[in-house]
Amino acid sequence: MNAVNIIQPQSGAAFELKKGDVLTVIDPKGQQVSDMVVFNRDDTKEKLSAGKTMDFEESILLTKGNFLWSNRSRKMMEIMEDTNGRNDFLLAPCSPETFKIMYNNPDYHPSCLINLYRNLQPYHIEIDDIPTAFNVFMNVQFDAKGKLKVLPPTSQAGDLVRFKAEMDLIVALTACSAEDSNGGTFKPIHYTITHRD
Amino acid sequence: MNAVNIIQPQSGAAFELKKGDVLTVIDPKGQQVSDMVVFNRDDTKEKLSAGKTMDFEESILLTKGNFLWSNRSRKMMEIMEDTNGRNDFLLAPCSPETFKIMYNNPDYHPSCLINLYRNLQPYHIEIDDIPTAFNVFMNVQFDAKGKLKVLPPTSQAGDLVRFKAEMDLIVALTACSAEDSNGGTFKPIHYTITHRD
Repeated sequence: MNAVNIIQPQSGAAFELKKGDVLTVIDPKGQQVSDMVVFNRDDTKEKLSAGKTMDFEESILLTKGNFLWSNRSRKMMEIMEDTNGRNDFLLAPCSPETFKIMYNNPDYHPSCLINLYRNLQPYHIEIDDIPTAFNVFMNVQFDAKGKLKVLPPTSQAGDLVRFKAEMDLIVALTACSAEDSNGGTFKPIHYTITHRD
Repeated sequence: MNAVNIIQPQSGAAFELKKGDVLTVIDPKGQQVSDMVVFNRDDTKEKLSAGKTMDFEESILLTKGNFLWSNRSRKMMEIMEDTNGRNDFLLAPCSPETFKIMYNNPDYHPSCLINLYRNLQPYHIEIDDIPTAFNVFMNVQFDAKGKLKVLPPTSQAGDLVRFKAEMDLIVALTACSAEDSNGGTFKPIHYTITHRD
């Protein structure tokens, strides 16, 4: 058994993976979202690219068999397993401005962007350089005209997405802070890392 | 009459706009795509964000009345007019790897990413820092499962998209180099700039 790492509600974590390591992101209670960003461990100017991923995978939704690509057109991760089946890159990580502008809430509110940034500080990544995240378990619905709507995730307790690292990586993950992403509840995210033999 | 600036087929241009200036991007022959990236003129770490734009505008497709947003959650441009009505952020600018990986072409091929980069060199913007572009006139179709398909643009000769700068900006534009974006033809893009009174 691999140790289960717990990301508390409305918080985040960052860690390194070696090429070949397997990361499993788990929704332990159901209906929670995790934002994930990924950087090349040896050169953090190379990072996850929403546009390159949708381009090479020819899909807005990404699931088992799809790869996540970098801004240098290289594979960063492979999705090996996905028991829920809804993940995308459509919306940027919630930020302080998300709550001011979209929720009309002028007060302090935790956010994925700040949680990603704080956890990435040991790796000297600036907040402006955090890319659009891979939205694990997020249920963004779109109609034929492209209108977007965020619904509670379809994920149930224990659903998971498993990723294999295609290069040495820095990964940051959150347990999402936004009410709309998870049906108004805040829940933890769990993850495990299996090291390559 | 404002001077018409011509971007030759498979090339690009970069220029500055002052807050309030109006940029008109014109498809002079029809069925051509222009990739556009935008930076805050006074701090190029602030730049166009596909994720923030789709998030705040709640739409994959962007047209008249929509704003283009930065990675700092600020409005960069307003779309004032759009005679064609199909623009998106779904695919990253075509790059040398696009032609190697998706077109199975190992030889040299011009690309929007290199044309953006070369034209942005006077502004000291690194290639890794070029964001996913706003795909003006691009006809990316998606089905309910999110599968993507690039069709020739629906734009006809003279179609245009007009943008108002919401802050002082550096803008780079291309006449797209990719066969799939424009039905296998390569054509110019025209643009005009109207300065605020």
